[in-house]
Amino acid sequence: MKRLPKLPTMTILPLLLTLVGGSAVHSQTDALMPKPASVRASEGRLAITGSFRVALTGYQEPRLDRAARRFVNQLSQFTGIPYLDRMMTDTSAATLVVHCEHAGEPVQAVGEDESYTLDVTPQQAQLNAPEPLGILRGLETFLQLVHEDREGFAVSVVRIEDRPRFPWRGLMLDAARHWMPLSVVYRTLDGMAAVKLNVFHWHLSDNQGFRVESKLFPKLQEMGSDGEYYTQEQVKEVIAYARDRGIRVVPEFDMPGHSTAWFVGYPDLASGPGPYQIERDWGIFDPAMDPTRESTYQFLDAFIGEMAALFPDAYFHIGGDEVNGKQWDANPRIRAFMQDHGLKSNADLQAYFNARVLALVQKHGKKMLGWDEVFHPGLPKNIVIQSWRGSETLAATARAGYMSILSNGYYLDLMQPASQLYSVDPLGGAAASLTPEEKARILGGEACMWSEFVTSEDVDSRMWPRTAAIAERLWSPEDVTDVKDMYRRLAIESRRLDFLGLQHRIGPALMCERLTGLEPAGTLATLDALLEPVKGYARERARHYNRLTPLNRLVDATPPESNVARKFAELVDDWNAHQEEIRQWLAKWQSNQARLAPLLDRSALLQEDIPLANEVSALAAAGLGAMDYLKSGKPAPQEWVAQQHTMLDQAAKPVAELTIAIQPAVRKLVDAAAQTRGAP
Amino acid sequence: MKRLPKLPTMTILPLLLTLVGGSAVHSQTDALMPKPASVRASEGRLAITGSFRVALTGYQEPRLDRAARRFVNQLSQFTGIPYLDRMMTDTSAATLVVHCEHAGEPVQAVGEDESYTLDVTPQQAQLNAPEPLGILRGLETFLQLVHEDREGFAVSVVRIEDRPRFPWRGLMLDAARHWMPLSVVYRTLDGMAAVKLNVFHWHLSDNQGFRVESKLFPKLQEMGSDGEYYTQEQVKEVIAYARDRGIRVVPEFDMPGHSTAWFVGYPDLASGPGPYQIERDWGIFDPAMDPTRESTYQFLDAFIGEMAALFPDAYFHIGGDEVNGKQWDANPRIRAFMQDHGLKSNADLQAYFNARVLALVQKHGKKMLGWDEVFHPGLPKNIVIQSWRGSETLAATARAGYMSILSNGYYLDLMQPASQLYSVDPLGGAAASLTPEEKARILGGEACMWSEFVTSEDVDSRMWPRTAAIAERLWSPEDVTDVKDMYRRLAIESRRLDFLGLQHRIGPALMCERLTGLEPAGTLATLDALLEPVKGYARERARHYNRLTPLNRLVDATPPESNVARKFAELVDDWNAHQEEIRQWLAKWQSNQARLAPLLDRSALLQEDIPLANEVSALAAAGLGAMDYLKSGKPAPQEWVAQQHTMLDQAAKPVAELTIAIQPAVRKLVDAAAQTRGAP
Repeated sequence: MKRLPKLPTMTILPLLLTLVGGSAVHSQTDALMPKPASVRASEGRLAITGSFRVALTGYQEPRLDRAARRFVNQLSQFTGIPYLDRMMTDTSAATLVVHCEHAGEPVQAVGEDESYTLDVTPQQAQLNAPEPLGILRGLETFLQLVHEDREGFAVSVVRIEDRPRFPWRGLMLDAARHWMPLSVVYRTLDGMAAVKLNVFHWHLSDNQGFRVESKLFPKLQEMGSDGEYYTQEQVKEVIAYARDRGIRVVPEFDMPGHSTAWFVGYPDLASGPGPYQIERDWGIFDPAMDPTRESTYQFLDAFIGEMAALFPDAYFHIGGDEVNGKQWDANPRIRAFMQDHGLKSNADLQAYFNARVLALVQKHGKKMLGWDEVFHPGLPKNIVIQSWRGSETLAATARAGYMSILSNGYYLDLMQPASQLYSVDPLGGAAASLTPEEKARILGGEACMWSEFVTSEDVDSRMWPRTAAIAERLWSPEDVTDVKDMYRRLAIESRRLDFLGLQHRIGPALMCERLTGLEPAGTLATLDALLEPVKGYARERARHYNRLTPLNRLVDATPPESNVARKFAELVDDWNAHQEEIRQWLAKWQSNQARLAPLLDRSALLQEDIPLANEVSALAAAGLGAMDYLKSGKPAPQEWVAQQHTMLDQAAKPVAELTIAIQPAVRKLVDAAAQTRGAP
Repeated sequence: MKRLPKLPTMTILPLLLTLVGGSAVHSQTDALMPKPASVRASEGRLAITGSFRVALTGYQEPRLDRAARRFVNQLSQFTGIPYLDRMMTDTSAATLVVHCEHAGEPVQAVGEDESYTLDVTPQQAQLNAPEPLGILRGLETFLQLVHEDREGFAVSVVRIEDRPRFPWRGLMLDAARHWMPLSVVYRTLDGMAAVKLNVFHWHLSDNQGFRVESKLFPKLQEMGSDGEYYTQEQVKEVIAYARDRGIRVVPEFDMPGHSTAWFVGYPDLASGPGPYQIERDWGIFDPAMDPTRESTYQFLDAFIGEMAALFPDAYFHIGGDEVNGKQWDANPRIRAFMQDHGLKSNADLQAYFNARVLALVQKHGKKMLGWDEVFHPGLPKNIVIQSWRGSETLAATARAGYMSILSNGYYLDLMQPASQLYSVDPLGGAAASLTPEEKARILGGEACMWSEFVTSEDVDSRMWPRTAAIAERLWSPEDVTDVKDMYRRLAIESRRLDFLGLQHRIGPALMCERLTGLEPAGTLATLDALLEPVKGYARERARHYNRLTPLNRLVDATPPESNVARKFAELVDDWNAHQEEIRQWLAKWQSNQARLAPLLDRSALLQEDIPLANEVSALAAAGLGAMDYLKSGKPAPQEWVAQQHTMLDQAAKPVAELTIAIQPAVRKLVDAAAQTRGAP
């Protein structure tokens, strides 16, 4: 047998990283993400050298001091230049002068001023902001401006005036379904700060786990968490860390549904008889709190009081989604209660519950936030509705006078490409027809990372870099919509996030290595770079998953979006200008198969991916054939075209919850070959 | 201009990872590192599935319980299988039964029993050890046995009986010259545990920094550390973490030299007039403690007492190396003291100092440890000498009745290949001729990570995976010396260390990305994979470095050893059998140049590497030419050979503190072509 050469060219990192940038050198002011409200770039550069110094002037507070020190540390990370003590008060000798006008709120508030101006001249940079939040945002912008050129590290001369479009720019992390260790939480906050998000929405309880220590009701975490929960001390540290980065922490305790984990320790809260166990399956389940017993509200009064003291944010999220009502229907006492109180439906019963809980939330000094289902005319207007159902419900709540935030379209677990997330505007769709006053009630949006199908190992790869695209949508002016430019900057930001310690690239790379065992992972990475996980809810329909299902297959190591396929599609769209490059890619994918096949064959976990490898090989052959016909100037024979279409149809079907993302572009080549009149 | 195709095949990770393993599937019992004392492998496998359970029997303690839980977490990391509560006491249903006979020492002691036996059958695995340390070692062995085959994850059937060859197997980390944050310390301990090292030697003070909080003498850290020091609370946590992993923590406070940082806050300790500043340069400096004043010993009495309470280990390292004596020579009072006390030389004065310090160390319940220079006949025999000068001094101390450990040959900062570190045996060289009784005084060895030329960013890449080779030398039987097999297993262990969170591969990869800015890093990685940093002390001779010099150049991102060059040399040694493969590699290196050149040209930091890229291209061309001549069967013309030799001589010279590691192999090809009588 011919010995296959092992070229030292294979990579385990998703190929994303190799596709950053083109051959043109961009000014780093073109690398900002999110794009500022106003950027005026000029010629010139401010050198970043070992003598870099930062001076803080104006209003002072320890948070600003820590921010400046963190900034210098990050500057050191991005440049490799060591900085010891860089803080000074002598503004004339400083490289960056930071001036804050006055204090912000003691607890970060919705709509607090985040604006700043950043003026970079060849001599000095000046960052001004009314409040500390603006300083935090401006420092992140400055870091994004740092680049290396032939003279060394520098920041381009520029004047930036910036402020966010929406005051509520969030990321929700579901720590209930799969446990998310503190390391994930801190990494997530680091990423959020880098792209100017300002709300960390922490989904802390669900059927599959109760994740916060309660001192009043310790059985919540002791019996409802498998030992996987955050202590109150840890929560306080997270909140302090977030505040330092200009991020509010909004806790969510989902009720009256999504609450099985509460009932393991406190079965009397439920509407049906116990005992209860922590739910291992995914889905919507019957257990729900009993809205008819005063003891439920006594419990919640004490619990909300405890959590309201722990979480300083003005908002308290009560969830409120997806109650199927079955326990209520089955309980004669609850039916009787509804009749007595004139509650005609389970929705009415839930509205009654919500009103009672709202009173408790307000009693403890908080404003209430809930998912779509909590919206019920008659509730006071100072609640906020989080819309997961869509633009219609979002617009309806705004018309009814309620504040809201958009999450529909921003579900990271649905694996949509960044372009699609980017296209969703909180003021688009049905909201576009709102009056200005109604529009003002739409506070912003939140990306949502539900965790049925992610663990701490791959959660970064589902959040990043795509969340940066959502962050730009929520921060930047409405007319910042150039998708191609977004992708260019997203790739740059993705690299920067690596330096901050995010695991979105190394995580999947290690998972690929695990799949290949002792063998080189490069051939698998070459295949994987052409694949994408199935979209939407297709994965949970494909097979039965639960909390104990290993998420260690190729689909778990596959990033949501194939950058190679996107780039290849661009080449194919202009195939005549890129013939050589298209051929080289296709040839590589075809020749990969010989090395890959034995590797797939010997792994239990990779067996299911064998058809994908075969199909990629066939697609590459079809593409090469099409290129030959295109070059020849003669149309491809109909029989050949028909054969390829059969193959293409087959290759379009998901296998092992993966799809082959280059299939549409190869189809274009085949179709072009069928009709070719040759290259001009 | 021809548009250069950008193939999606480039990697930023050092190519190490692509060269793991061959095409044959090895039993995972061949993957153990360090190799156990005895391994008897049989046919069969124990499946590792979602129903994995571990049971602890025999002697119980919280440390063992934590170890078992950590083990299950790591098993989950290595397999991707989620495990919630896996602990049980029912041994019949357990997959792994752990049996510990009795307790170990309350503070881990030198020579404490680390032996264990591990019996794996298709039904169950049984791990037995007399003491908890053996259980810790055996659990690491079990994890190394886990692999995936066609049926899923498994451990091969095997019986292992294991114990270490040396009781002292250490790694020294210099946290003084460049600050090493806690994250580095914890990662280092994780790596040490994986390869069964048992002493973390923490170099905590030097001219460039004093790194531990003293409550008695707070100006030590306040004025001597740039704010970069470990609090006592942090030290305690590190020690507890290390103890959980069977690792002793030995602190070193270097005295009377290497102590400038002490004098910033306490100038009266010094032998010359102050004031002092933290030293920024590297090297040997004049300041030394004043051995003639009682106040020095009063200070040290209190200080050693404080640190002896903080660090529970039996040993206390006083450094004692490299006193140049200039401050002593220059101080008339010290000269007079020497005369009064009959001290004829500075060495005598230092011996006097050492004897005084030894008394203090013993007063506070500790044994003394010091570098070669503290060895002085007349000192009591229970001190331990750490030999950095070589095998001769090591043997001499053993002959004189002193215990010792070897560090000469294990300096990681000198960038020697793993094969060289592996070849150094504490009982080799001059020690080979010692009597058995004398040999028994050689307790083991320590890898040393001095930090003049490393930061937290690349320190992992200097420590790992090479330290695993030293760990094997110190643990495994003397006759385990197969270098090729060591490299095979080292590559496997390197991947495993990645899963533990070590940064030895991602760190340099990110540094390469920083150097390429927005451009793809793959072309630079292709070059970098062929390079090695200069060896020994060549780097500090190449230019002036100090604490403020950025370590952000290509040499800093280059791993100590080129695995690609090693592999290529193997191919060239058998060139006739690998012609196609050799050509493909050479062609790739040659074609890389066109994409790489503009990238190097536009970066200030990469300018210096342009000659390296040119030389690699020329080497590749020479290699391809040689292959042509070899294939033709005709000897290469003398003129061509002479030209190539000129080029090869040039390419052998270091550039930018880097050498081209493929140069010797290309020279072999050229020389073969000069003499060829054709392929057989």
